[in-house]
Amino acid sequence: MPSSALSASYPTDSTFDRDDLLADYLRVRALTERLCAPLQIEDYVIQTRVETSPPKWHLAHVSWFFETFLLKPFLPNYRVFHPGFDHLFNSYYEQTEAGYWPRPERGLLSRPSVEEVYDYRQHVDEAMRRLFDECSDLDWPLAAERLRIGLNHEQQHQELLITDIKFNFAYNPLYPAYRSELPTNAIAEPDTLGYVAFDGGIVDIGASGQGFGYDNEYPRHRALLQPYRLADRLVTNDEYLAFIDDGAYRNPALWLSDGWSHIQTDHWQAPLYWHLIDNAWHEMTLAGLRPLNPAEPVCHVSYFEADAFARWAGQRLPTEVEWEQAAAGYPVDGNFVDAERFHPAPAASSANDSVPRQLFGDCWEWTASAYLPYPGYRPAPGALGEYNGKFMSGQMVLRGGSCATSRDHARASYRNFFHPHERWQFKGIRLAQDDRA
Amino acid sequence: MPSSALSASYPTDSTFDRDDLLADYLRVRALTERLCAPLQIEDYVIQTRVETSPPKWHLAHVSWFFETFLLKPFLPNYRVFHPGFDHLFNSYYEQTEAGYWPRPERGLLSRPSVEEVYDYRQHVDEAMRRLFDECSDLDWPLAAERLRIGLNHEQQHQELLITDIKFNFAYNPLYPAYRSELPTNAIAEPDTLGYVAFDGGIVDIGASGQGFGYDNEYPRHRALLQPYRLADRLVTNDEYLAFIDDGAYRNPALWLSDGWSHIQTDHWQAPLYWHLIDNAWHEMTLAGLRPLNPAEPVCHVSYFEADAFARWAGQRLPTEVEWEQAAAGYPVDGNFVDAERFHPAPAASSANDSVPRQLFGDCWEWTASAYLPYPGYRPAPGALGEYNGKFMSGQMVLRGGSCATSRDHARASYRNFFHPHERWQFKGIRLAQDDRA
Amino acid sequence: MPSSALSASYPTDSTFDRDDLLADYLRVRALTERLCAPLQIEDYVIQTRVETSPPKWHLAHVSWFFETFLLKPFLPNYRVFHPGFDHLFNSYYEQTEAGYWPRPERGLLSRPSVEEVYDYRQHVDEAMRRLFDECSDLDWPLAAERLRIGLNHEQQHQELLITDIKFNFAYNPLYPAYRSELPTNAIAEPDTLGYVAFDGGIVDIGASGQGFGYDNEYPRHRALLQPYRLADRLVTNDEYLAFIDDGAYRNPALWLSDGWSHIQTDHWQAPLYWHLIDNAWHEMTLAGLRPLNPAEPVCHVSYFEADAFARWAGQRLPTEVEWEQAAAGYPVDGNFVDAERFHPAPAASSANDSVPRQLFGDCWEWTASAYLPYPGYRPAPGALGEYNGKFMSGQMVLRGGSCATSRDHARASYRNFFHPHERWQFKGIRLAQDDRA
Amino acid sequence: MPSSALSASYPTDSTFDRDDLLADYLRVRALTERLCAPLQIEDYVIQTRVETSPPKWHLAHVSWFFETFLLKPFLPNYRVFHPGFDHLFNSYYEQTEAGYWPRPERGLLSRPSVEEVYDYRQHVDEAMRRLFDECSDLDWPLAAERLRIGLNHEQQHQELLITDIKFNFAYNPLYPAYRSELPTNAIAEPDTLGYVAFDGGIVDIGASGQGFGYDNEYPRHRALLQPYRLADRLVTNDEYLAFIDDGAYRNPALWLSDGWSHIQTDHWQAPLYWHLIDNAWHEMTLAGLRPLNPAEPVCHVSYFEADAFARWAGQRLPTEVEWEQAAAGYPVDGNFVDAERFHPAPAASSANDSVPRQLFGDCWEWTASAYLPYPGYRPAPGALGEYNGKFMSGQMVLRGGSCATSRDHARASYRNFFHPHERWQFKGIRLAQDDRA
Repeated sequence: MPSSALSASYPTDSTFDRDDLLADYLRVRALTERLCAPLQIEDYVIQTRVETSPPKWHLAHVSWFFETFLLKPFLPNYRVFHPGFDHLFNSYYEQTEAGYWPRPERGLLSRPSVEEVYDYRQHVDEAMRRLFDECSDLDWPLAAERLRIGLNHEQQHQELLITDIKFNFAYNPLYPAYRSELPTNAIAEPDTLGYVAFDGGIVDIGASGQGFGYDNEYPRHRALLQPYRLADRLVTNDEYLAFIDDGAYRNPALWLSDGWSHIQTDHWQAPLYWHLIDNAWHEMTLAGLRPLNPAEPVCHVSYFEADAFARWAGQRLPTEVEWEQAAAGYPVDGNFVDAERFHPAPAASSANDSVPRQLFGDCWEWTASAYLPYPGYRPAPGALGEYNGKFMSGQMVLRGGSCATSRDHARASYRNFFHPHERWQFKGIRLAQDDRA
Repeated sequence: MPSSALSASYPTDSTFDRDDLLADYLRVRALTERLCAPLQIEDYVIQTRVETSPPKWHLAHVSWFFETFLLKPFLPNYRVFHPGFDHLFNSYYEQTEAGYWPRPERGLLSRPSVEEVYDYRQHVDEAMRRLFDECSDLDWPLAAERLRIGLNHEQQHQELLITDIKFNFAYNPLYPAYRSELPTNAIAEPDTLGYVAFDGGIVDIGASGQGFGYDNEYPRHRALLQPYRLADRLVTNDEYLAFIDDGAYRNPALWLSDGWSHIQTDHWQAPLYWHLIDNAWHEMTLAGLRPLNPAEPVCHVSYFEADAFARWAGQRLPTEVEWEQAAAGYPVDGNFVDAERFHPAPAASSANDSVPRQLFGDCWEWTASAYLPYPGYRPAPGALGEYNGKFMSGQMVLRGGSCATSRDHARASYRNFFHPHERWQFKGIRLAQDDRA
Repeated sequence: MPSSALSASYPTDSTFDRDDLLADYLRVRALTERLCAPLQIEDYVIQTRVETSPPKWHLAHVSWFFETFLLKPFLPNYRVFHPGFDHLFNSYYEQTEAGYWPRPERGLLSRPSVEEVYDYRQHVDEAMRRLFDECSDLDWPLAAERLRIGLNHEQQHQELLITDIKFNFAYNPLYPAYRSELPTNAIAEPDTLGYVAFDGGIVDIGASGQGFGYDNEYPRHRALLQPYRLADRLVTNDEYLAFIDDGAYRNPALWLSDGWSHIQTDHWQAPLYWHLIDNAWHEMTLAGLRPLNPAEPVCHVSYFEADAFARWAGQRLPTEVEWEQAAAGYPVDGNFVDAERFHPAPAASSANDSVPRQLFGDCWEWTASAYLPYPGYRPAPGALGEYNGKFMSGQMVLRGGSCATSRDHARASYRNFFHPHERWQFKGIRLAQDDRA
Repeated sequence: MPSSALSASYPTDSTFDRDDLLADYLRVRALTERLCAPLQIEDYVIQTRVETSPPKWHLAHVSWFFETFLLKPFLPNYRVFHPGFDHLFNSYYEQTEAGYWPRPERGLLSRPSVEEVYDYRQHVDEAMRRLFDECSDLDWPLAAERLRIGLNHEQQHQELLITDIKFNFAYNPLYPAYRSELPTNAIAEPDTLGYVAFDGGIVDIGASGQGFGYDNEYPRHRALLQPYRLADRLVTNDEYLAFIDDGAYRNPALWLSDGWSHIQTDHWQAPLYWHLIDNAWHEMTLAGLRPLNPAEPVCHVSYFEADAFARWAGQRLPTEVEWEQAAAGYPVDGNFVDAERFHPAPAASSANDSVPRQLFGDCWEWTASAYLPYPGYRPAPGALGEYNGKFMSGQMVLRGGSCATSRDHARASYRNFFHPHERWQFKGIRLAQDDRA
């Protein structure tokens, strides 16, 4: 794979300094293990539904990524840790030779043990250190580019680790806590929802080439916007409760047809993780079961619920272009995984009415946009091209990052995507409206 | 439902003349029965997969539509034909009271008999004639608007009748013919594929309010186009065979992930209805099993196949905006159901290189656009609002009509939509490319 | 297949007279068509669940049986009616070459039409008449033996025709009647249930070789009985209602584990075809929906329900040996299909306390015996050996025949068998108890 | 529950000595933990198919049994270890209040941890020691009877532990060994199969009341036998290979219908755990993957395979009465779990032709008998009555015990039962034939 081919989609930039990247590598790898520290060995093994993976699998898979896309091609004499891992820890790359263990059966394997998986990580880390030292200057630009993908890839799996652990623990009728000492958001009344206006016009959308961006954020291109307004914060639990109390889950007029089917089939009556106990709403969190906080952003809703809520409220969801154009002007601040709250927080009271809050962190925000290629999009050649492009059907775009995202993984052009029924990620709702003024 | 509310989405126009509409009504209703004339009674009963319906069900459902949305509200003293039909022949309207018989079980009912269903149609027709006579001038504008929806609705079911009959007959190992005497397209070499260039710029898209349009074609709105080029005809069987022969169905690099899953699960190796018999490709048609004609447009492909073919060919599918902008300039001519060929025909040789052929008729053309609401879209209030809007997730837009569509049902702004894996409609492929000149 | 091999399981007897058998043939074949006379064409086509078959399929399959096992091997120059029928109308014979159309999809075929199926029957009948005339004396014994199997086979399908039509009609929310003019049993109080004592000892069980018997009734063998008592009539609806009213369907202590699963999964709350309408129990019959008659035998119950009822009543079900030993002494009289009531009737009041009533006809009686081979059982060689033997796992034996059985098809040694959850046949309950006197 | 009620099915005997039972208790409990000693923590968590359970669940469930049926009713002031365990570790008792966690989801719970489960065991053990001391003489007979059930129950789960661990490890493509140092049976030629003759006549069958017996072994009763012969050893791998090599898995004439369906659906081509690697048959064992030993008994076959093998061999399977009558005369010796081989061994060469070998231990032997109640069978009252009786439909009886059974758990009257398709237990084949001499 010539670097010129790659550069079409992953633009090179000047930040390929070996020392900087080694520091990034060590920092990212360490966070993965830090996130797992509260787990007991048993917690690493289970998979409670097909979309989640056992923590042990995440730990191994992100290492397999470095082994496959960096160590094997670029480190001479690299010794593979275990010949069976290529099959076990490939996720979905069809163009690699070993195939992959069926995704629904990742929780059916007790071996390799957790200890062996940590040994595997250490083996890869040692080899990676050698790669930083020994990679030729000729290979380095491509290796560095892939390394940055590998680090962002591991950051994505850090978020999945958190959300999968939460799903596993919430499935257990004993409601175990991941970290019971996590801080609690004060229970408060949310402030009144306002809107911030943005101009229409022809705008430039997509990654600019400054800093890292996935192939699906390219190419930057022009789009047409009508004047619009975005809510100045996320929808709260309190507001969502009004929707529930108004009978929304029993009123088909509010729902997309596929959403209504999920209500019938899966018996949705509230967001995932909500429990009505003795007539009081509670929510399962990574600190265990807690009373619902009305001021917090509503979280763990599907696209169908976000869309129905907006319809009920007489508003709509923003498009991804509207969202990106609005967010591009603000710094990437917010409640990220770095804060180790592992839960969305109420919007801070605002000093400035014209600035939308919570654009970054807290909850991924469902947009009204289907996940499709940007005009002129080309995936990378080879197996790495399977990273983003092949999922461009049937999913919706989310923006902004969550309390399980790393701050340096978030950016205005970032396009996350999930199927419209999925709820186990930290996903919330920001309303939008046309600006007819 | 006040007519002012409806008019937001279904603009009124001057063609609400009672005599004209009665003529339309009689013509459309007669065509439905003419299309069923070749059937034996047994053929009316079966449903070979969940997405199709028994012909008898279609015949009754379109009558239920007139009964429910016109006769009950507007014809005083209308006597319902059978109280059980409200439940049996409602399709999916959640906001009506009677609920509906489960869609997968429509083929499990031998009664009402075909004769009773025809009696039901006659009962409705007689009442509708009275409605034309007796409807007050006050009610007429709203009634006429709904009538036009009802006629377009019946035309849609005429297309489904054809495609469902084809599916049923193709499922039968005896390969019965719907009409064995249908004409055959001469087997010929297709001409070389060319491209026609179109300008970019800001364009107006959506129904203009001239003539009928569904709510999902509204509101007309502005969109931004880059210069682009459309293929001057549909992709042929011959071209698609080259894709198959190149191993496309075994090469995951060409496919969206969900498409690759269908290949594994459903064992796709060619378009629906293709059969390799003694090393020669044949195709099941409404005239029975016939040798594949290389010059005909490839038909009965999924979005996944259309997308993979375009990728293999180094091209792409057009967006719905590109398609509509290009088609808006041409008359609605083509191989429609009116011709009673019931099969796509090879593109006529072209006198003018700058005119794309086959834009209308032959095959619906998959676009690269997800089926989403236009900016400012509002569905009609009440149960009729369930017609289009609630399906706006998970489906892709198709344009242009097919050999099973009525000519006066097709238009440039028409948005058809299906799930990306569905193949039993007449669906083909038109390629597009950026115009980088 | 030498006749000597066959004779192990199907003993020859002296009733192979050609004229007698021709009369039997004509009579049996005529009854099949008489039973279908009330059907409309649509009724012939549908299959409402996998265990049932479309009436049209039954009509063709029984003819295929004669074609396959008699006409092809024994009638020189026999011309097959349609080469595709061998595949379409084979039921489950794995050892024939053509394979068979999947059983769950028998209702997905509109062709061959009903008319063609009747033509097929006529074609077979004409060829069979020739066979009666032309078969050599050498072949005749084996042909006659198979013919008797074929006639009994067609009688079995006559019963299935009735029960499948009932299931289809009961599935339809319009509750159509097969024959609305059928007589009604007077609503009466049932008499008190009594018991008739039978001796223990070593008894001979199985077909004696007098008259026809299936291979599974052979060989006649010795069995050991303890003294026992049989109820003097079938359990009534009235008695079964007491079981329901006692909360039986909510009390796991009464049920076999697999039966309890069916209650949870299929929501059983009463026998099949019972409907509680405005607080009054009704029952779907072949004459349409009717108020439940408390004096009639409870019918359409599973083995699980029969077993639970017996447990609740402090009794048990009889073994098949007990049943056969008791029944062997009585004539085969009762409410059979010959009476064309198509519904069980209350037990006639008894002149003699020591004679059990309703042993034959009305309802098949679940026994406590699993369907297993008799000691020394050998199936016939070749495909006909698949008739009975291969189903000897997972099913329970029923005895006595029903109101849908032909009188001359019933006998004391007859072993019917169904899975313990199946309810759509006419199946009832006779209680038994040990005789500890 | 008065002891007199229980004694109907679980006859009391003189072996209710407190010291003896305490010794039994300690020995049985210790073996469970010894069997788990080779496991890593991860191995305790997984469930690879619905019929198996995680080792951790077995460890807890057997303790729950003592807690529920002994400690709660008989030990004053017993403090429950964890209120949630009643729900989590009940297996299938419908008559207890807490319900039970769904069986297919036992492997979805990482908590309680393995350590907590061992704490639970210790908690129960300490309370049980108190019960031995403090139980009143009035309660003791019933408590002792239940204790013996509890110990036999735990021994059954010891066998399941072994077979479930084997299934889990065999599912893993890394083929981990449970104990890689286990001894290997010498590869040898099996001796020629002989038969041992047994007389017919009226025999007494069922538990005698000497020593422990489950309720399903009672009441002892008379049965009629014809003279018969049993094979003098189990069928070997070598003999089973001849069956495979003869195309048995492709020949429907050999199979019961349900067995043939499993071959189609589950692609059976050999016993479970057999793998053809480089044209040589291997077998997954608890010591890992090993070359197939032709002299060992074939193991891990379904009833369908045992039945088809017998048919192919021109023999049959024994009935449970035949087996028990033959085995009753011999001591309970054999290759049991006590030997810690965890694998069947070749039959020792025989000094005496008239003694069948391998009656006990090695493999459970499929019989031709359906699992049904003995005449006069009554389950115990209350929840304990759900132990055996409610499974008396759809299963087949196996006899003799296996290499995973405790020697003191086996006896001639023991009735094991499984569904005919199940293969993950150590199940083999003994042939039988009529003795027509």
